[in-house]
Amino acid sequence: MPASPPSAAVVDLLGALAYGELSAFDHLADDAGLAPTLTARARMSEMAAVEFGHYQRLADRLVAIGADPEAAMAPFVAALETYHSLTKPSTWPESVVKAYVGDGLAADFYREVAEFADDATGELIRDVLTDAGRAEFAVHEVAAAVAEQPAIAGRLALWGRRLVGEAISQTQHVLADRDSLMRLLVEGTGDLSGVTGLIGRITDRHEERMRELGLAS
Amino acid sequence: MPASPPSAAVVDLLGALAYGELSAFDHLADDAGLAPTLTARARMSEMAAVEFGHYQRLADRLVAIGADPEAAMAPFVAALETYHSLTKPSTWPESVVKAYVGDGLAADFYREVAEFADDATGELIRDVLTDAGRAEFAVHEVAAAVAEQPAIAGRLALWGRRLVGEAISQTQHVLADRDSLMRLLVEGTGDLSGVTGLIGRITDRHEERMRELGLAS
Repeated sequence: MPASPPSAAVVDLLGALAYGELSAFDHLADDAGLAPTLTARARMSEMAAVEFGHYQRLADRLVAIGADPEAAMAPFVAALETYHSLTKPSTWPESVVKAYVGDGLAADFYREVAEFADDATGELIRDVLTDAGRAEFAVHEVAAAVAEQPAIAGRLALWGRRLVGEAISQTQHVLADRDSLMRLLVEGTGDLSGVTGLIGRITDRHEERMRELGLAS
Repeated sequence: MPASPPSAAVVDLLGALAYGELSAFDHLADDAGLAPTLTARARMSEMAAVEFGHYQRLADRLVAIGADPEAAMAPFVAALETYHSLTKPSTWPESVVKAYVGDGLAADFYREVAEFADDATGELIRDVLTDAGRAEFAVHEVAAAVAEQPAIAGRLALWGRRLVGEAISQTQHVLADRDSLMRLLVEGTGDLSGVTGLIGRITDRHEERMRELGLAS
């Protein structure tokens, strides 16, 4: 139980992540409509429902530490909606790659930052970011799509690069705007070379995911 | 554990309901985008996530009795999507009324039919159809909308009538098309006057819901 009011950075971190989950729910539910079969549609709808469960836990945590979820999320709505509107999948394989690669990228970032938060916050964040079999599903769906139409491998590789590009761009906007998060990041990593190391680790894991999908990164 | 293969009626009933839940998930998630606040949006997204959980249980049950969920749902996709496309809410109060009145109507129908299925099926159906505080939310949101703009009460009453009309029309199409369900219904109620009684009970509960919302039925 925190004796003092929660730090601005923790409220920002939970607020950004909570809105990230709520918007992931919304967009995954939407993208499920691109699925070629009811089974695949149900699988992506399930991912959406899981994200909603995560949102719920983060919102509950915000309430528990005395913050208002709506106010905590508000500063991050624009950046996340911009990310989603610039990365709206137009095919099923694109939506699968986004669900795995885009959300994986976000998860890696939050997982890194969670290290610098208090223990309870860090634990909750690590807990809501478990992957839950998404890799296996993505690998299967992308392999099936590429087998049917080999030319899309190149387009999906480009798509992966676009997802990273837009994610980095929106993260920079948010950090430029939210001093508390920027400070958490810089103080947590120690200095700017620490930030560079963090970016390197996230990029490495992104490339690993693209390799798993059989796509160039 | 059924020793014999499941009856066609039970597979149809579970399939129709499973697709009903999957499409309710989809449309509630979509309609959440009409919410005036993040809190209201989260509340409707939660309803969607709950419907997905119900879908999951129904699909699991289909698998358990040896049926393929995708095949079981397929005959009902067109009717349910037609219902949703003809009742696409264009405002937040419309989406709230649909979530409460439209889904309530469907729930009453399934609950009646569940009486004629085997015990395990009936129990599962009654279990996934619990309302989970939706009434309270709908009453609150509709009251707030009408207080702000009294003229919409008339439009929402019309909207309620449209929801019933389209639901009845699609149910008739499905029953005309699926002998097993029609037989379950007629044999279960005893005869055509039994069917009339069932329709009367569903209509009564619909009117009750409209009254709760403060709207003419």
